[in-house]
Amino acid sequence: MILRSKHIILEHGELDGYLELNNGVISGIWEDYEGPYEDFSDMVIFPGFIDIHIHGWATGSFWFEKTAAAIREMSRTLPYAGVTSYLATSGADSIPEIRQCIAAADEAWEQDYPGAQMMGVHLEGPFINPQYRGMQKEECCIEPSLEVMKELYGSFRHKELCRHMTLAVERNGSREVLEFCHDHGIQTAIGHSAATFREIQEIKEAGIGGFTHTFSGMRGFHHRELGVAGAALYFDDMMCEFAKQTGMTVSHEAFDLAYRIKGSDRIILTTDCSGLAQTQTEFDHYVRKLKFVKDGDRVRICHYDGREESLDPRDYEAVKDVELSYVKSVQNMARHTKVTWNDIMKMTSLNPAVYLGISDRKGSIAPGKDADLTILDKELNLVCTFCRGEEFRP
Amino acid sequence: MILRSKHIILEHGELDGYLELNNGVISGIWEDYEGPYEDFSDMVIFPGFIDIHIHGWATGSFWFEKTAAAIREMSRTLPYAGVTSYLATSGADSIPEIRQCIAAADEAWEQDYPGAQMMGVHLEGPFINPQYRGMQKEECCIEPSLEVMKELYGSFRHKELCRHMTLAVERNGSREVLEFCHDHGIQTAIGHSAATFREIQEIKEAGIGGFTHTFSGMRGFHHRELGVAGAALYFDDMMCEFAKQTGMTVSHEAFDLAYRIKGSDRIILTTDCSGLAQTQTEFDHYVRKLKFVKDGDRVRICHYDGREESLDPRDYEAVKDVELSYVKSVQNMARHTKVTWNDIMKMTSLNPAVYLGISDRKGSIAPGKDADLTILDKELNLVCTFCRGEEFRP
Repeated sequence: MILRSKHIILEHGELDGYLELNNGVISGIWEDYEGPYEDFSDMVIFPGFIDIHIHGWATGSFWFEKTAAAIREMSRTLPYAGVTSYLATSGADSIPEIRQCIAAADEAWEQDYPGAQMMGVHLEGPFINPQYRGMQKEECCIEPSLEVMKELYGSFRHKELCRHMTLAVERNGSREVLEFCHDHGIQTAIGHSAATFREIQEIKEAGIGGFTHTFSGMRGFHHRELGVAGAALYFDDMMCEFAKQTGMTVSHEAFDLAYRIKGSDRIILTTDCSGLAQTQTEFDHYVRKLKFVKDGDRVRICHYDGREESLDPRDYEAVKDVELSYVKSVQNMARHTKVTWNDIMKMTSLNPAVYLGISDRKGSIAPGKDADLTILDKELNLVCTFCRGEEFRP
Repeated sequence: MILRSKHIILEHGELDGYLELNNGVISGIWEDYEGPYEDFSDMVIFPGFIDIHIHGWATGSFWFEKTAAAIREMSRTLPYAGVTSYLATSGADSIPEIRQCIAAADEAWEQDYPGAQMMGVHLEGPFINPQYRGMQKEECCIEPSLEVMKELYGSFRHKELCRHMTLAVERNGSREVLEFCHDHGIQTAIGHSAATFREIQEIKEAGIGGFTHTFSGMRGFHHRELGVAGAALYFDDMMCEFAKQTGMTVSHEAFDLAYRIKGSDRIILTTDCSGLAQTQTEFDHYVRKLKFVKDGDRVRICHYDGREESLDPRDYEAVKDVELSYVKSVQNMARHTKVTWNDIMKMTSLNPAVYLGISDRKGSIAPGKDADLTILDKELNLVCTFCRGEEFRP
C-alpha cells in the first residue's frame, strides 16, 4: 500500500512524499512515485502514538479487570484514540493481583491481538509512597523490596514485557530495586514520591530514567526544597512523563513552564487513563468530583452534585468519552503551548520508544520499522491510524 | 583618562579596545589608541552594577536610619561592593516614617554625594500583604490607597526620585495605585503578595513591570494554582527581580530553573541588603537564625545557638561582611548557573536601567553615558569601580 502526504513527519524533518507499507512494515519512503496511492496530501502523518502509561481505555481495563480480554479490548479501541502501541499499566494492588496482571499480559502477548500493540507492562507500584498515593490503594503501597521485585519479574513468562517501573526512591530498599531494574533492562521513573531534591540527586545515578505523571503525586516545588517536581524540571538527563493534558490535574500554564524548561526532547505524553467504566467496585475520582460505581452489568457515574448517569461498559460509543483520549489531549496541549509537528512527534512517539528501548520497531517513520502511523488533519483531529499496516478509521 | 581591556562588555558584544572617560562621562570607545592608559587588559569591564532593591549597606541604612547621612554612607561604601548606582529602598513603615525616608532621599539628591549614585527610591510597601510580609512590620502592611499614594508621591520634592513601588496586587485599591504609578512613570512590581495566577493575569495590563525578590514573600508555585511565583516565571513580558543569591533564601537550583525560563533578558539581580548593623531596635533574621540588637553605640549579633558578637556599626571593615555583597552574590550565582559576561551585564546593569527608565545615563558602556564601570577579574572578583569617572579600589 502506498500513502501520499505533503507532511510526513520523519525523525529529522518533514517529507513531501510517499510511504510504502508492506506486511505491516514501512518498506519504502520516497519523494516521487508513479502509481495508485491512498491520498492524505493535506493531512499530517506522524509515527504512531505510544502511550506508556495507560491502565485502561473505554471498554477494557488492565488495572481493574486484570485479564487478557481487557487488553484485547484496549488494543481494539485505542487506534480510535490515535494510539498504535502502549504499555498496559498496573497499579498498587496486592502482589497476587499484580501477578494476575502480569499473567494477563503474558497471555495477550502470545495472542498478539489486532489493533494497538501492547508492548509490555508498566508496573506503577507497588513500591510507592502512601503519602502521595493519589488514587492508589493505601494498603498496597509497600516498601521497595528486592525479593518482591524478583518475584514479580520472575513471574513474567516473557521477560521483555517487564518494561517499566514507577517507584518512590526515598523509601528504604529502592536502590536495590533500581539496580535490579537497571541490570534487567527495565526502565524506571520516580512517582508517587515524597523524595527531596537531594535524595534524588544522590540516587539518580543508579539509573533512573524519568518522572511519572510530572507534578501529580509528588512532593511539590518550593524554592528552598525543590522536591520531586523541581528535580523533574531540573535534571536535563531525565524525562518528564505527563498524564493527559486536561488543564485540570496540571494547569496548562504549569505544563507550558515545564515545556519551556525540558523541551520536546525530554517530555513524554501519556494519558494515565484507567478505563473507568470498567471499575469492579466503587471508584472515587476526587479531582473530577465524581464516582464510578459498578452496578450489575452497568456502571453508574455519580457526580458529587447529585447528578447520575448509567452506562453500558461494553458499549464503546457509550464509554469512549468517559476519559479524554490521547489524541484529544495532544490537541488540548497544543492549544496552550507552542509546539511544532516535530515536537509532537517527539513527545508522542520518538521519546517513549527510545525511553523504553523499543526504537528498533517503533517511534519513527523509517524503512523496516512497524507500519504504525497516526494521521491527523492540520487541526490535529484524528483521520485514521495504521497499526502494523492495518488501517483504523474512527 | 583612558582604560584598556580585552574584555569591554558593550550592549551588543565584547570589545578588545579602549575607553575614554572625561568629566564623569564615557567620551570615547576605540579599538585602537596611541598614548598612555590604565591597563585592565585581562580584566572584564562591565557597565556599573545597579542595585534597585537595597535598604542599606554596611555603615548606612536608609530603611533603619531614614537620613541623608545613611544614604551618604551607602554611596560611599557601595563601590566596594561593585555597585555604582542604586535605589534607596524603604520598607513597610508608618506613613510619617516613609515620608521621612522620602525627605532623606530628596536631601541626598540635592547633596549629590560622591560614590555610588542614589537614583531614587524604591517604595517596598506599605501596600503589601501581611500574610507574606517576611521581615516587614505587620501593622504597617496596609491596603492600597490612592490617597496615601498621592500623599507619598506629593511629598517628594524631586518627583523623578519616585521610581519604583512594590505592592500586593490582590488587595483592594491596587488597580488605582497601579494606574497612578503608570501615569507618573513609577515602575511597579508584585511582591509580598498572595495573588493568584488569574488575579495577576487580569491586572497585569494595568502596567506592572515585574516581581520583587522572586520566590520570596509570595504565593508559591503549585501546578494547579501557579500563584505569584508561577506567574513570575510564566509571563514573558514581566521581569523577575532576585534578591542576592546566597543559596539559602532561594536555592541555587531554583534560581537556575528561573534562569532557564526567563533568560538573562528578564532577570534583574539585586541584593535586598538592609545594612543590618544599623538596626535601631532588635531585628530578627529568621532565615539566617540570628538577631541584630542595638546596644548603645555597638550592635550585637545574637545567634540562635547562643553565640554572640559585638561590632562597631560605624567601622566599615567590621561590618562589610555582615551581608553578602552585590559582587559576591553575582559570583555565587555564576558558580551554579551557566552565564556569560554578556548575561551578567544584562542582569546587573542593562535590564535595571531600562526597567527604571534611566538608560539614557546608565546601564551600558556607550559614548555620552555616565562613566559608571564595574571591573572584575575573570573569576568575577572585584578589581575596582568607577562612579561617574571616579575610581574606587577595595
